Amino acid sequence: MNNFFSGLVEKLEPYVPGEQPKNNNYIKLNTNENPYPPSPKVIRAIKEAANEDLRLYPDPECEKLRNTASDYYNIDAEQIFVGNGSDEVLAFSFGAFFADRRIFFPDITYSFYPVYAKLYNVAFEKIPLDRNFEINEADYFMKDGGIIIPNPNAPTSKYLDLNKIEEILKTNKENVVLIDEAYIDFGGDSCTSLLNKYSNLLVVQTLSKSRSLAGLRVGFAFGSEELISGLNRIKNSFNSYTLDRIALVGATEALKDDAYFKEKKNKIIQTREETSHALKTLNFNVLDSKTNFIFISHERLNAEYIFNKLRGEKILIRYFNQPRINNFLRVTIGTDREMQNFIKSLEKII
Amino acid sequence: MNNFFSGLVEKLEPYVPGEQPKNNNYIKLNTNENPYPPSPKVIRAIKEAANEDLRLYPDPECEKLRNTASDYYNIDAEQIFVGNGSDEVLAFSFGAFFADRRIFFPDITYSFYPVYAKLYNVAFEKIPLDRNFEINEADYFMKDGGIIIPNPNAPTSKYLDLNKIEEILKTNKENVVLIDEAYIDFGGDSCTSLLNKYSNLLVVQTLSKSRSLAGLRVGFAFGSEELISGLNRIKNSFNSYTLDRIALVGATEALKDDAYFKEKKNKIIQTREETSHALKTLNFNVLDSKTNFIFISHERLNAEYIFNKLRGEKILIRYFNQPRINNFLRVTIGTDREMQNFIKSLEKII
Repeated sequence: MNNFFSGLVEKLEPYVPGEQPKNNNYIKLNTNENPYPPSPKVIRAIKEAANEDLRLYPDPECEKLRNTASDYYNIDAEQIFVGNGSDEVLAFSFGAFFADRRIFFPDITYSFYPVYAKLYNVAFEKIPLDRNFEINEADYFMKDGGIIIPNPNAPTSKYLDLNKIEEILKTNKENVVLIDEAYIDFGGDSCTSLLNKYSNLLVVQTLSKSRSLAGLRVGFAFGSEELISGLNRIKNSFNSYTLDRIALVGATEALKDDAYFKEKKNKIIQTREETSHALKTLNFNVLDSKTNFIFISHERLNAEYIFNKLRGEKILIRYFNQPRINNFLRVTIGTDREMQNFIKSLEKII
Repeated sequence: MNNFFSGLVEKLEPYVPGEQPKNNNYIKLNTNENPYPPSPKVIRAIKEAANEDLRLYPDPECEKLRNTASDYYNIDAEQIFVGNGSDEVLAFSFGAFFADRRIFFPDITYSFYPVYAKLYNVAFEKIPLDRNFEINEADYFMKDGGIIIPNPNAPTSKYLDLNKIEEILKTNKENVVLIDEAYIDFGGDSCTSLLNKYSNLLVVQTLSKSRSLAGLRVGFAFGSEELISGLNRIKNSFNSYTLDRIALVGATEALKDDAYFKEKKNKIIQTREETSHALKTLNFNVLDSKTNFIFISHERLNAEYIFNKLRGEKILIRYFNQPRINNFLRVTIGTDREMQNFIKSLEKII
């Protein structure tokens, strides 16, 4: 107990992100980063934006980026919010819609949700995935609180069909339903197609994964004007300028270079399928993935053992010592060469 | 009343930042930006950091930047926190130390403090400045809550001597005393010299003003390890990576180029003194400033009238329609040429 700490800070249980090694000696398959660089157009635009205008505050409304996103996603600019990474967007969402209330989310999911819940005094109930790690949509019908569903889910990598999400939206007209689409670009269909039918829908996305911009910190929320105005109220009570000039420019260019984006994400999908196939021949159970990672367990070898052995081989993957998934491993899809090395190391271990 | 909004978001009264015009037709003396570009070394470093590593998350601990700041300020790296602009650092401070408690700050000061207070359910009491807009340090002795004093204060531009701040620290050993030093580099002495004597002291600074990096969003807090750990607990429950890779690199270089920093801030101080002198000959009352702005009122002409007239001349300054200061104007110190134009326009108006 520390006298200087508020009651709030005392009760928090901060999130611990995946390891970021200080050197480059590792094959890094542990934090779901994109193995390919950002679009050359993004790099060029950032170099150009490194100029004397950095002395001036950025646009607090992020107008140019929101307009570009509006064109790209075909969503009204007033229905778009941008933040300093989707983690910040999620934090603001908890404040705007769930603070001092109650929410529901899957028992196996992004482990930041309970952390945000403590930050904003949100009661939460975890709804178990079924034995195949699937979300049963009926578990979320007519709840008495907000709902968060990552689609695809992490770390399971599994995708939920839009018609099932629509059932959840229909039966929760009074509740905000947040669909966290951090990984949507790797094979799923986005819920943004449902935005004009459901004012209770908030869709959160990020440029970190499919646009190779984890280092630039840009996330989006899409929703009814009403929901977006709630996010703006929180943001403007926290920090007027959450995105710097460079991030605004880089994000704008990333959305514009659609050809590059599609090429790289298709490549990752292809590598994922090839890796999954190779793993199955090594007697791994590989869940059906629509993300840039796979969630696997071996029929004989213990997950933590494999995790540690791979670490010895300078390959970092992610192991969660949590009920139900403590015999699984989350592996980010890297380049073909990285995944070949990964498979080779596994063959050695097995 | 909006059913989707939490009680928290309903009760907020968001901050409204100074106008950021979408075009460059104005002489912009309204948001205390630096009229000079950032160091050429910062620009170069950012261009170099625009590379494929942007695909990777930034260092969530900001180790390199904190180590550079540690060398520069001669403060232990464990006593340094960095955030996405000092506004974010202030927001985290409210959460970590003041949430659900009580704080005291001057009646005329940065208008974001009451906004943060609503965000974290903080009761606040405003302590009036004296008739000369000075802080009477004795008003802050032995309080039953946290204390925030901007030094120099904004928008008054007035500086409080460190020995007076030390009296406040001494008589409030149980309370966190936050000294907001956004403008400290323009003529004041930083409280960081008191850090090792007072574990209740938190000093907040920014690179926005004196380092010409408003567009990059980097702020600091300096305090006891205890206080810094509180900030980290909040930050790591909100967003693991608040500073992007570019901001980390740019901020590091900004601290390293001390010669450039000193040259530009000395130039601004010189321009401030010359401008103040010219204004006095035009019958303006100019408060004694230790900042990159001045706070002025005219002996005859109404402040709002001057504000609007200047706007017509394409010169933006800041007018606060608030009790006690509604006949004052806040004017950022620009280049010599900008200030000459400003004076010329005033001569026309008068």
